[in-house]
Amino acid sequence: MTPTLQDCRERDALEPLRPLRDLFALPEGRIYLDGNSLGATPKATAARMADVVQREWSQELIASWNQAGWVDLPQRLGNQFAPWLGARQGELVFTDTTSINLFKVLSAAARIAAEDGPARRKLLTERSNFPTDLYIAESVCAQHGLELVLLEPEQILGALDDETAIVLLTHVNYRTGAMHDMEGLTAAAHARGIVCVWDLCHSAGAVPIDLHGADADFAVGCGYKYLNGGPGAPAFVWAHPRVVNRCAQPLAGWFGHAAPFRFTPGYAPAEGIDRYLCGTPPILGLSALQCGLDVFSAAELLGGMAALRAKSLALTDLFIALVEQRCAGHGLTLVTPRAHDRRGSQVCFARDGGGACAVVQALIARGVIGDFREGDGGLHQDILRFGFTPLYVGFEEVWHAVEQLRQVLESGEWREARFHQRPKVT
Amino acid sequence: MTPTLQDCRERDALEPLRPLRDLFALPEGRIYLDGNSLGATPKATAARMADVVQREWSQELIASWNQAGWVDLPQRLGNQFAPWLGARQGELVFTDTTSINLFKVLSAAARIAAEDGPARRKLLTERSNFPTDLYIAESVCAQHGLELVLLEPEQILGALDDETAIVLLTHVNYRTGAMHDMEGLTAAAHARGIVCVWDLCHSAGAVPIDLHGADADFAVGCGYKYLNGGPGAPAFVWAHPRVVNRCAQPLAGWFGHAAPFRFTPGYAPAEGIDRYLCGTPPILGLSALQCGLDVFSAAELLGGMAALRAKSLALTDLFIALVEQRCAGHGLTLVTPRAHDRRGSQVCFARDGGGACAVVQALIARGVIGDFREGDGGLHQDILRFGFTPLYVGFEEVWHAVEQLRQVLESGEWREARFHQRPKVT
Repeated sequence: MTPTLQDCRERDALEPLRPLRDLFALPEGRIYLDGNSLGATPKATAARMADVVQREWSQELIASWNQAGWVDLPQRLGNQFAPWLGARQGELVFTDTTSINLFKVLSAAARIAAEDGPARRKLLTERSNFPTDLYIAESVCAQHGLELVLLEPEQILGALDDETAIVLLTHVNYRTGAMHDMEGLTAAAHARGIVCVWDLCHSAGAVPIDLHGADADFAVGCGYKYLNGGPGAPAFVWAHPRVVNRCAQPLAGWFGHAAPFRFTPGYAPAEGIDRYLCGTPPILGLSALQCGLDVFSAAELLGGMAALRAKSLALTDLFIALVEQRCAGHGLTLVTPRAHDRRGSQVCFARDGGGACAVVQALIARGVIGDFREGDGGLHQDILRFGFTPLYVGFEEVWHAVEQLRQVLESGEWREARFHQRPKVT
Repeated sequence: MTPTLQDCRERDALEPLRPLRDLFALPEGRIYLDGNSLGATPKATAARMADVVQREWSQELIASWNQAGWVDLPQRLGNQFAPWLGARQGELVFTDTTSINLFKVLSAAARIAAEDGPARRKLLTERSNFPTDLYIAESVCAQHGLELVLLEPEQILGALDDETAIVLLTHVNYRTGAMHDMEGLTAAAHARGIVCVWDLCHSAGAVPIDLHGADADFAVGCGYKYLNGGPGAPAFVWAHPRVVNRCAQPLAGWFGHAAPFRFTPGYAPAEGIDRYLCGTPPILGLSALQCGLDVFSAAELLGGMAALRAKSLALTDLFIALVEQRCAGHGLTLVTPRAHDRRGSQVCFARDGGGACAVVQALIARGVIGDFREGDGGLHQDILRFGFTPLYVGFEEVWHAVEQLRQVLESGEWREARFHQRPKVT
């Protein structure tokens, strides 16, 4: 039976994470289903930024490096968020960007793999991985004499062989929302002696992650999607204690030095994850990010990741059910896996006969902010993409979003949708 | 004749750049002579950050990538500041950190030099260069099979030979304030076919720089010192049009791609300086930095770099004269060059018999914020370091700073100075 608007309202009323929404400053009259591109703004961020600028920086100036704890903010934020990734204290830092952190860990992974000799000559990844992952992997491969092998997801398990040095996988695919079995793939890779690097951009803060449980080697991820750190927020980097000290990474800046303030002329990498730091930390960005992480600390009190995941699956289940029932006959085909253990926190549909981009534009004009991802003309179709951040998206919003989608499709207004040229910053 | 307090007040009253000080939010009752470590806060920054967080991010969300111009902020800020470096439109971007930008340009320089063959096997730099420069150079050398050669400043010219691939120099030394002859050294290097990389961290915004006039190859520099962009602000990177497209740099992130929003699987570097971008730009940090650059746009109306440089030299001349007259007999020896064409915008003294750190601490306790730099027990002594940012430091402040220094030295109170353990984030 199709859930009704009233059903959705009742679910919101009973929902244990409901108070978290009040921690966000969201625009009136819009339904935001693009938090997997840019997370929403915690209400606390504005006051925090004012304090950093007007007191810590303006009044205390350089003294804030110690007094305000600027100097170890990358580590403190890492420790604050580590439990959400199944990481331990002292293993995670927030710094630089996902692209740069990926360069660091792939370079380290290549150095580690090289110790096994030149037979390990391949880096495997998914063809539909987010492009920056492919570009960085291509660059690291060129530097280390590795071959970059692009695969479809179902080919990966069978491609793991003794010639593989590294497998780089994005846990949740940015287009389809399909989620890999991190533990199973890591175990299969390790059985072949392959170093496993996980990109958690579309899963950190959105789905359960247990890096130690999965025995991963390296992980990186984004601060501006589900972590709500703000546009271009610092990213994170993690390395398993087993591999973290095996080699230095090449971005050997002073904050990754064993004694950064001794000013010795030779580089000596810090022990542990600190060696993955590089230049002076971006204090404004890190301070804003902290407000995003504080929301997770609040969520911990309301059930933590188990509650977030339950709500995320309920939201995406509801969205799928409503679209398939209320928008039937308009050529939409679910792309995201139905199976819970294969689904991230987003839902994508392809549309027969095209028009996916126009439909998304028409929805945005009606105040429902989703996203469009272009296909490649081959295996990967154009898709409508909708992200469901369980911290702030509610069931009633899902109902209204589908109702707007229904109206867009039935009215045909999408055929006249104005195209906003905008970059797709996933 | 020793200038009097009254003389200093009169100079302030007549000084054409005086209105710029009102653009900064500085703490009451303190004299800030450490703007070469962390620049002061422009008054406009607080409102700008509030607007970015509360309107652009919170209310407009992803639409701000286009509507608020987030997507090309690195380039727009680069164009805004380019004239202050003698760079042209489209040649400069603000992104990442100095350390990371240095890695990019040194890697590119190594690739360019390699085209001349394996005979070019050395990277020359100064032993007293800022440590992160040495660490990054060490890493790049290891990757490219180059030998890192550390020299004293007076050895550099004679060391440029046909085996040298790259010379990396910091224009103004972070310890001593000594300034290199950029044009002369670049010409001497080019005569030997050597690629010239300049670190402008302690000179950008403080002294005249003409990258095209000097015919430099690459340059990087800091956003949080004289540019007043805030703690850990994004840094800049520049490449001469002659070399910018000769090769890709290894941090091949999506923002450096020729078509970043086409999401093609293969990397194709953008034309021009855009290829030195990597990950998603840090919008909060860039937005704050813009307020720092806006002060320079205001300075342009009041005489520009000629006026800034004249004031900087007048401030440092005055400080040197007052210290040498009023603090005579306390063992202070000027380390910074007296010659104007060899001096940056800071003044350093060594102290016979030690105690430099304690004197700086005692001064800070009296509200005069200078800095201390430890020596290496050899050629480089412990020093007291004072930065003079002509945008906001006045002549009367110089007088009071020296008077406080005199009292600290004469009273001997520095012998009881409490040591604040604080990292030296230059």
